[in-house]
Amino acid sequence: MRTTAVIGQSGGPTAVINQSVVGVVQGLRDGGFTADGSKILGMRHGVSGLVKGEFVDLTDIDDARLDRIAVSPSAGLGSTRDKPDQAYCERILEACTKHGIGLFFYVGGNDSSDTCRIVNELAKSKNIELRCFHVPKTVDNDLMANDHTPGFPSAARFVAMACAADGLDNASIPGVKINVIMGRHAGFLTAASALARDITETGAPHLIYVPEVAFDTDRFVQDVQRTIDAHGRCQIAVSEGIQNAAGEAIGATLIKSGQVDDHGNVQLSGSGALGDALSDLLKEKLSPINGKAPRVRADTFGYLQRCWPDASPIDQREARGSGKFAAQCALGGDVDGSIAITRVHELGSGQPYTAAFKRVELTEVAAKTRHLPSEFIKGTDDESDAFFDYCRPLVGELPRLERF
Amino acid sequence: MRTTAVIGQSGGPTAVINQSVVGVVQGLRDGGFTADGSKILGMRHGVSGLVKGEFVDLTDIDDARLDRIAVSPSAGLGSTRDKPDQAYCERILEACTKHGIGLFFYVGGNDSSDTCRIVNELAKSKNIELRCFHVPKTVDNDLMANDHTPGFPSAARFVAMACAADGLDNASIPGVKINVIMGRHAGFLTAASALARDITETGAPHLIYVPEVAFDTDRFVQDVQRTIDAHGRCQIAVSEGIQNAAGEAIGATLIKSGQVDDHGNVQLSGSGALGDALSDLLKEKLSPINGKAPRVRADTFGYLQRCWPDASPIDQREARGSGKFAAQCALGGDVDGSIAITRVHELGSGQPYTAAFKRVELTEVAAKTRHLPSEFIKGTDDESDAFFDYCRPLVGELPRLERF
Repeated sequence: MRTTAVIGQSGGPTAVINQSVVGVVQGLRDGGFTADGSKILGMRHGVSGLVKGEFVDLTDIDDARLDRIAVSPSAGLGSTRDKPDQAYCERILEACTKHGIGLFFYVGGNDSSDTCRIVNELAKSKNIELRCFHVPKTVDNDLMANDHTPGFPSAARFVAMACAADGLDNASIPGVKINVIMGRHAGFLTAASALARDITETGAPHLIYVPEVAFDTDRFVQDVQRTIDAHGRCQIAVSEGIQNAAGEAIGATLIKSGQVDDHGNVQLSGSGALGDALSDLLKEKLSPINGKAPRVRADTFGYLQRCWPDASPIDQREARGSGKFAAQCALGGDVDGSIAITRVHELGSGQPYTAAFKRVELTEVAAKTRHLPSEFIKGTDDESDAFFDYCRPLVGELPRLERF
Repeated sequence: MRTTAVIGQSGGPTAVINQSVVGVVQGLRDGGFTADGSKILGMRHGVSGLVKGEFVDLTDIDDARLDRIAVSPSAGLGSTRDKPDQAYCERILEACTKHGIGLFFYVGGNDSSDTCRIVNELAKSKNIELRCFHVPKTVDNDLMANDHTPGFPSAARFVAMACAADGLDNASIPGVKINVIMGRHAGFLTAASALARDITETGAPHLIYVPEVAFDTDRFVQDVQRTIDAHGRCQIAVSEGIQNAAGEAIGATLIKSGQVDDHGNVQLSGSGALGDALSDLLKEKLSPINGKAPRVRADTFGYLQRCWPDASPIDQREARGSGKFAAQCALGGDVDGSIAITRVHELGSGQPYTAAFKRVELTEVAAKTRHLPSEFIKGTDDESDAFFDYCRPLVGELPRLERF
C-alpha cells in the first residue's frame, strides 16, 4: 500500500496534543508505512491548511526532535477553530484525493470527530478508500465512549496544583476566593480542583460548583457564609459553565435579575465576568466580619489550564499511545474510527490503574458531549469518593505542601 | 542573653516566604540562641497576632518539618494586610515587652520594613533593647538597596513559563492575546515575561508594557497592528499598573475617555478589567483579518504568580540565606536593619552570578519604592539585553519548548 498519511490538530490545544501526533508518526513508521516511500504529512492549522495544501513533511523527522516536540504544550502543527460543514468536508476530500492521501488522522475533540465522520461518510459514498481516524484530545474530558481523554489529566493536574497553592494563599490572608475553571458544559476539570485536598490540609477548595448541578445563588451565598462561619475563610472552585435550573448562564443572569447592582463593576462578558459577578454578589450579601465587608477576590485561570508545561506523566504516555494505536488500526485494514481510552479494572475494584485503547465507531463520539456522572458528584457543592478514585491515578504524583 | 525571638510574615505571600522564616529559625539555633532556653515564637498573621498574643512555638520544630514547610508557598504562619501606624506600633512594642521579646524579625515588603523602622525607633526612644530586623520579600521586586528581592525570582519564573506556554498557544491558534501581570508600580515582573523568548522561538511576548513607561493607547494599537502585519499574531504582556503620561490608570481611563464604548462589556474595576478594556479597544481599532475582526483574548494571571509551587532554586536558597543572615546579625550585637541582596560581580562583567547579603539601615528601605531602571527598558515596549543579563540567572533553568 503506497499512499500518503496526513495528520492534523484541531480545537483548543492541550499540554499533550503533540504527543498524539508523535504517536501517529512513530506508529506509522514502526508499522513499516514509510519503508516503501510513503509520506507522512502534517496539516498546518488542521483542515484549513489541508484544503490550502499547507503541509509539513514529518516522514523523516528524527526521533530526538519528535521527543522534544512531544513534551511541548500546544498544537505544534498549528490548530484551527474551523468546524467543517458538508461543503467544507467536500473540499477536504478533494484535497485528500489531490495529494494522494489514503490515511487521515485528526487529533481533537467532539467537533473534530464529527469532521472525521463526515469526511469518512463522504469518501465511502464515493467509493474512495480513505481511512479516517479521530485521535481524542480535550481538557474538558467530554468525549463519549472514553474513560477519560488525553489532555484532561494534565489540565486536572494544573487545576489541582493551582487550587492547592491558592488555598495556602487564602489560608495565609483569610478571605473569600473564587477560582473560575474551564468547562462550558462538562464539570470534570472543575471537579479536579478537589484533588487540591490531597496536596494541603487547608480544606480548599471548600466549595465546588459544576455545570451538571443547577446553581442557586441564594444557596451559594448560604454555602459561603456557612464556610466562613466554620473556617474563617472560603475558597471556591466554579466552572465557567455553571447555569441555573432554567439552563441560563449565571454571570449574565445575576446582572439581569438585579441580584447584583450594575454599578459599573460587573460586566456581561469578558474574561473576568463570572468571577466578578459572583464576587459582587458575595460582597453585597455576606455578613460583615469584625464590622468589615469580607475580602472577596476572583481569579479566572484562563489558557494556562490547557498549556501549562508540567504535564501528567500518564497523560503523556496515553496521548502518545492513542496516536500509535490509531496508526496501528489504520495500517491493519480498511477501517476507520475513533480511539478511546478504557480502564481495564473497574473503579472500586482495588486493582491498580491500567488503561487500554480500543477502536470505536466515529458515530459513537462525533458531536456528542459526555457529562460528569452523577456518582462523581456529592451533594450540590462537592465530589464523591468515586471521583477521587477516578481522577487520582490520572494526574501523576502530587507534592505535599505544609504550613506551620 | 536570654530573651525571646519573634518572627512574622506580612503582606502578599510568595513561593519562598517560608524559606526566610526557616532561615531565621535555623540561624538562631545555629548561633546557639536556643541553647540556654531562649524561645523562638512565630506570630500568627504577623503583627495582628503579635498584639493579640497568638504565637506558634518554633523553638524545637524539627529540621525535616522545617524543610517541608520551606518549599511550600504562601505564608505558613499566616500573613496580614495591617499597615501599623504609630499607635499600632506602640501596641506592638507593649506586646514585645509583655512577652519578653528581644529579637524581632519581620518578613515582608516596604510596608513591613516601615513597621520595623517605627517599632525600632519607638524602642530606642524608650531605651528598650529590641533588635528589629526586616527580612525582604516581594514579588514586585521594588525594595530599595536590593539587587533583587526574595520572591521575585520565583514569580518571574512563573511569568516566563506562562508567557512561553501561552505563546505556543497563541502561535497554535493565531490571534491577539493580552496577559495582565502583577505590579502596580514596578514593572520588574512584567519585564520578566521577556524571558519566555529563552523558552520558545515564537517571539512571544511581542510587546511588553511596564508602569515606568507612559502608556499611549494610540501607539499601543499601532504596535499591535504592526505585529499582526508582520507575524499574523500578537502576544502582549502588560503590567496591571500601566498608566498614561498624566499618571492615570489605563483601564478606567479608556472607558471614561470614551475610547472604548461602555456597552456592558467593560468594567471599571474587577479582576479582568484592564485586560477586557484593552481587548475592547483592539477589537474596535484593529484592521479586520480576512474580513473578520481579529480574535482578541485577555487573561489576568492573578494570585498564581505569587504562589505557584515551582520556585526558582536560587530564590529558595537566597530567601533562606537572608533569614539566616538576619539571625546572625541580630545575634552579633545590638543592631537593627534590613537585609539586602547584592550582586558580587557587576552586570556585564562576564563573571558568574554570585549573591551576597548585607545589612542596611531600615530607613534605606522603609516605605520606599524601587522602579525598573531605565537601562533595563528598550524603547516603549521591550526590555534591554541588560535586563536579560540581570534576570536570567535568577529564575533557574528553563525548559526549551518546540514546534513542528
